[in-house]
Amino acid sequence: MASALRHLNTFIFWRAILAKLADFISFLLLGFCTLCLPGNLLAQEKRSPAIMPLPAHVMQGEGEFLIDGDFGIALKGYKEARLERAQQRFLDTLSQETGIPLWRQAILNAPHFIVQTAGPSAAVQQLGEEESYHLGISTTDVQLTAPNPIGVLRGLQTFLQLVRITPRGFSVPVVTIDDKPRFPWRGLLIDSGHRFVPIPALKRNVDGMEAVKLNVFHWRFADDQGFHVESKKFPLLQEKGSGGFYYSQDEVLKIIAYARDRGIRVVPEFDMPCHTTSWFLGYPDLTSGRDPSRSSAIDPTRESTYKFLAEFIGEMAALFPDSYFHAGGDECDVKEWEGNPRIQDFMRAHAIKDGAALQVLFTAKIQKIIAGRKKIMVGWDEVLQPDTPKDVVIQSWRGPNSLAEAARNGYRGVLSSGYYIDLNQSAAEHYMVDPLGDSTATLTPDQKSLVLGGEATMWTDIVSHENMDNRIWPRTAAIAERLWSPQQVQDVDSMYQRLAIISEKLGYYGLRHRLIKRMSGEPDPVPLKVLAAVVQPPRLYERQQLRTFTDFTPLNHLDDAVPPESDTAREFNEIAKRIALGKADTQEWQQARQWLVLWRDNDAKLQPLLARSYLTQELAPVSRNLSRVAEIGLQALDDLHENRLVSADVWQRNIEFLKSSGKPQAVLLLMVAPSVELLVQATRTH
Amino acid sequence: MASALRHLNTFIFWRAILAKLADFISFLLLGFCTLCLPGNLLAQEKRSPAIMPLPAHVMQGEGEFLIDGDFGIALKGYKEARLERAQQRFLDTLSQETGIPLWRQAILNAPHFIVQTAGPSAAVQQLGEEESYHLGISTTDVQLTAPNPIGVLRGLQTFLQLVRITPRGFSVPVVTIDDKPRFPWRGLLIDSGHRFVPIPALKRNVDGMEAVKLNVFHWRFADDQGFHVESKKFPLLQEKGSGGFYYSQDEVLKIIAYARDRGIRVVPEFDMPCHTTSWFLGYPDLTSGRDPSRSSAIDPTRESTYKFLAEFIGEMAALFPDSYFHAGGDECDVKEWEGNPRIQDFMRAHAIKDGAALQVLFTAKIQKIIAGRKKIMVGWDEVLQPDTPKDVVIQSWRGPNSLAEAARNGYRGVLSSGYYIDLNQSAAEHYMVDPLGDSTATLTPDQKSLVLGGEATMWTDIVSHENMDNRIWPRTAAIAERLWSPQQVQDVDSMYQRLAIISEKLGYYGLRHRLIKRMSGEPDPVPLKVLAAVVQPPRLYERQQLRTFTDFTPLNHLDDAVPPESDTAREFNEIAKRIALGKADTQEWQQARQWLVLWRDNDAKLQPLLARSYLTQELAPVSRNLSRVAEIGLQALDDLHENRLVSADVWQRNIEFLKSSGKPQAVLLLMVAPSVELLVQATRTH
Repeated sequence: MASALRHLNTFIFWRAILAKLADFISFLLLGFCTLCLPGNLLAQEKRSPAIMPLPAHVMQGEGEFLIDGDFGIALKGYKEARLERAQQRFLDTLSQETGIPLWRQAILNAPHFIVQTAGPSAAVQQLGEEESYHLGISTTDVQLTAPNPIGVLRGLQTFLQLVRITPRGFSVPVVTIDDKPRFPWRGLLIDSGHRFVPIPALKRNVDGMEAVKLNVFHWRFADDQGFHVESKKFPLLQEKGSGGFYYSQDEVLKIIAYARDRGIRVVPEFDMPCHTTSWFLGYPDLTSGRDPSRSSAIDPTRESTYKFLAEFIGEMAALFPDSYFHAGGDECDVKEWEGNPRIQDFMRAHAIKDGAALQVLFTAKIQKIIAGRKKIMVGWDEVLQPDTPKDVVIQSWRGPNSLAEAARNGYRGVLSSGYYIDLNQSAAEHYMVDPLGDSTATLTPDQKSLVLGGEATMWTDIVSHENMDNRIWPRTAAIAERLWSPQQVQDVDSMYQRLAIISEKLGYYGLRHRLIKRMSGEPDPVPLKVLAAVVQPPRLYERQQLRTFTDFTPLNHLDDAVPPESDTAREFNEIAKRIALGKADTQEWQQARQWLVLWRDNDAKLQPLLARSYLTQELAPVSRNLSRVAEIGLQALDDLHENRLVSADVWQRNIEFLKSSGKPQAVLLLMVAPSVELLVQATRTH
Repeated sequence: MASALRHLNTFIFWRAILAKLADFISFLLLGFCTLCLPGNLLAQEKRSPAIMPLPAHVMQGEGEFLIDGDFGIALKGYKEARLERAQQRFLDTLSQETGIPLWRQAILNAPHFIVQTAGPSAAVQQLGEEESYHLGISTTDVQLTAPNPIGVLRGLQTFLQLVRITPRGFSVPVVTIDDKPRFPWRGLLIDSGHRFVPIPALKRNVDGMEAVKLNVFHWRFADDQGFHVESKKFPLLQEKGSGGFYYSQDEVLKIIAYARDRGIRVVPEFDMPCHTTSWFLGYPDLTSGRDPSRSSAIDPTRESTYKFLAEFIGEMAALFPDSYFHAGGDECDVKEWEGNPRIQDFMRAHAIKDGAALQVLFTAKIQKIIAGRKKIMVGWDEVLQPDTPKDVVIQSWRGPNSLAEAARNGYRGVLSSGYYIDLNQSAAEHYMVDPLGDSTATLTPDQKSLVLGGEATMWTDIVSHENMDNRIWPRTAAIAERLWSPQQVQDVDSMYQRLAIISEKLGYYGLRHRLIKRMSGEPDPVPLKVLAAVVQPPRLYERQQLRTFTDFTPLNHLDDAVPPESDTAREFNEIAKRIALGKADTQEWQQARQWLVLWRDNDAKLQPLLARSYLTQELAPVSRNLSRVAEIGLQALDDLHENRLVSADVWQRNIEFLKSSGKPQAVLLLMVAPSVELLVQATRTH
């Protein structure tokens, strides 16, 4: 089967997508392990580097820059604490990817990786701020230069994505990259309104955003179901509206700092005048309805409403430093207003023809309040009305038409229609949605420049923080590419191939125990796992006699990765004992045979894979031994089954081979050799 | 194969041990998936509850207490913030185990789980402090009573371990438990001396300690390789000795608070007078050698040494509130002293016969310093000498003999020999080591009471924070049982069976994405994963039409767990297309057939498993459809291969069945039905 490389490559990539952030996804594939033959590595090296989003300009060279214990990095030029923290996070991730303890060593080593920063970025990250960088990798040096720290952050992520395992060790390919984003607004909305999303879940997703160069965390705090952030001016909002779960202002500030460290703006959203039932639990006077718990709309006709909102927006505008403030405005059930006699009176008195017109009045007032706080309002489609001030940014959930219409009228816009990742569409579908495709494609260049970018939206109506990761990732990386890379980057096959690799890397932000995958560079190295299941590290102090360990020895070999006790081997040993004693039942005979066949045939699949990685090369003789041990075991089963007596010579040779196979090799014990010896011994005693 | 239940049960348990904290461990087993048939659940219910450590007294009853969205809990009696935090952590874990959002709801619901605390515990947790609790579970109520908050912590962990999935939902069995520990000192040493261990790794292991009722975190900060904690009096210790990685005193205080919240004492160790090379980098005057970087021993002959150590110990004794202070004392290379002319002179002048005697002098002085700070000294075997004060606690790494000898001489002791989890021994071996077995078994009852317990030791010579979890867990749970449960609890089979289940639960402290396992209650529900690999949640807003979702709907069904895009189905579809177009190669034909056979045969294995869980029952028709779809697909392959034309009737029936199978069932789409339809369509057009 190993010859159909093209097909298998594709297959392996599809599989890797599944493997993703989570172990459970790998479980889905258990049934198909026989199909995962190796074979994609060479092909992969020839393809464009597995970077996502693809950079604006890539020039591939020959050779590679090796990453080993001598790897050193230094920051030059403009300095700030954020850059030092970024360097440390970079080294932490690089250490995880390689198992080399660079996280403490690389700052002390002679630097071959020079990070050159020209100057600072704005005190509060601005829309459209420079994010470009130049990354030059030769066989001996790495140069990362950028006009400001944000560009450095982007370049470090690109470097991390380039790291892979080769026969010579971990390395990055020789390459020159000049990169900058296509759109300045590349966002992910996380909806903490429907469901409270705990801080750790936010953080790891902000980490993921950094990895794929997104730069806007759109944080929505309230909806009918809950109000989940602390207001000090109106504490009943969170006290009555949150069920006890809300972000303190301190926590909010920490997340803002966390995002800034990763080159990400935080744009808060407080959706109004609708989706606001939770507000009314603490402040029923705001409601349009008679029963506040059944109303979802704020009353836009009372002066007290605007007094409240001016104070509330003032407090939140001070808490969130970003220049933009999202005031929602979507999906108003205007019938609630139209059915309320008091509001009807108001509308008649002010010649307001319908509920939609009433929302226009509301939006205008809110916009003034926000502008009064020196912020620019963002709103969903519905806030776009003839009188809307020109600096308001329209976020389109209805479709590209409203974005095109907005741009024609001189409004800036952000596309979310097509990026609703809660709707379970494919990565390919999201990928093909372009903020300047479809009806926006016919805009003039000036109008096009009003399209700022897009935002993936993680609504939590029916997603919780527990399964949020598998909904956001890896598909959002494809959206990130759409928003960062040149428009002509459109190859779905290439996207899926790179998505699979990036998806693996994203795992480093949330998961541990990927040691075996890391060793092979394969997304799912099944034959290696078959071997890993029957070996153990030697016990007591023997390991130290077999390999030199210092404080900086990378612990990334198979003897580091496997648990101290092989349960498969123990189970096999139990069965072998029963077979040797003549006490085994049919099931046990069958199972022993099944295992032995698996082990016998594993070597042929495993050897080509072993050669590809510096970390697995030493396993070649162990794998060969397993195969030979299994062969002897199968022969012994046959002999026992048929009561055959083998010649003393052959018997003696086998016993000797089994004894020698039981000794450590590559700092590993082959735990099934003694069990097979039991079987062979039994052929002489039965 | 499904009949050999006894054997398979055992096997499934062995496998679950492997599954453990980590996804990589499950990978080891990929080769053996056909063996994991269901079948252990009924048997499991009849066995003693899967609690580890086993409680002192368990009385099993009939029936179960269901855990659903109405679950409510309340704290009664003595109150403190630690109890409220414990309640919240309990609910967080319970929510993770069940997917029911109890973490915010259970405090508001009417309480059927009453936690009654009699009074406070000591301000600083003391050796031998009460840890007992009573847990009474009936079909309608749960009562947890304890004399103090520590007992409550222990009881909550027992409750969490009892939670399982049944055909009626998540539940705990009716049971009455009266529990208390056998030994008062049940520890885990984590060695932050050889390698710095980052804070998150410490925290999740302290979480694990709480889960298995360990109560001493023995935290070792320095060794020859590094000095990893901040001293404000002697800052060169960390500045020169840590390579930049050390715990600030603030971080230390946070870990102490974190441990106290979990009923765990923090005993610091500063090993002296040897293993101290890292100290000399900042303070070379302390050394015994001429070249401080090659010396590992403190000079015990200078007054300046004791002045330094008195100040240093004073600082650290103030930082760590525990009554015990570990001063190391192990493995001194006394030749370093004996070979130094100046030290030789001192020894002659004071009639000290050899290096060992010189260490006695050193230890005596250090013990006085520690006692002067109102702390009790702990030391390794070597500190036990004729003149050692009687309150010094001996930690035995050499073997039980030294513990027995210590007890005969009136010293208290803690056993670590036999619990060296860095040596890769089996759980069974550790489990059979008893602090009062072997040479301590012959002590008098009074002498036996001097044996305080034991400590597992996670040395980091050749383990890093990355693979530390797989070395500590699950085996340390077996050691925890030895130290907590009655001495007669000795059944290794039972230990391994329960270890497997606890091991899964430990995963909740560090891992996400165990949603599919959780649904079935099986450690490795392979047939369910086979089904999961080919289904998807419906797209867009269709899910909401198929099931009612509120903010509190548990998101723990298969449509929540699977990713939005089935890559297996997409891959199969590509192949089906090529087969239908007559463009497929032999590999592709083979692969299509392999998949179809897997799917056809999966239903028979899956149905018994589905019935056992409330969350999987709804999948029965989906699984049946997959099987039938695959059968039709195999028939179509044969027809295509042999150019056979099937009757229009059969063809039409098949097409109709495939179309209906493509519709949502159990809020899931069977993604391979349309692909098989392609194949069937092709049989009429070829």
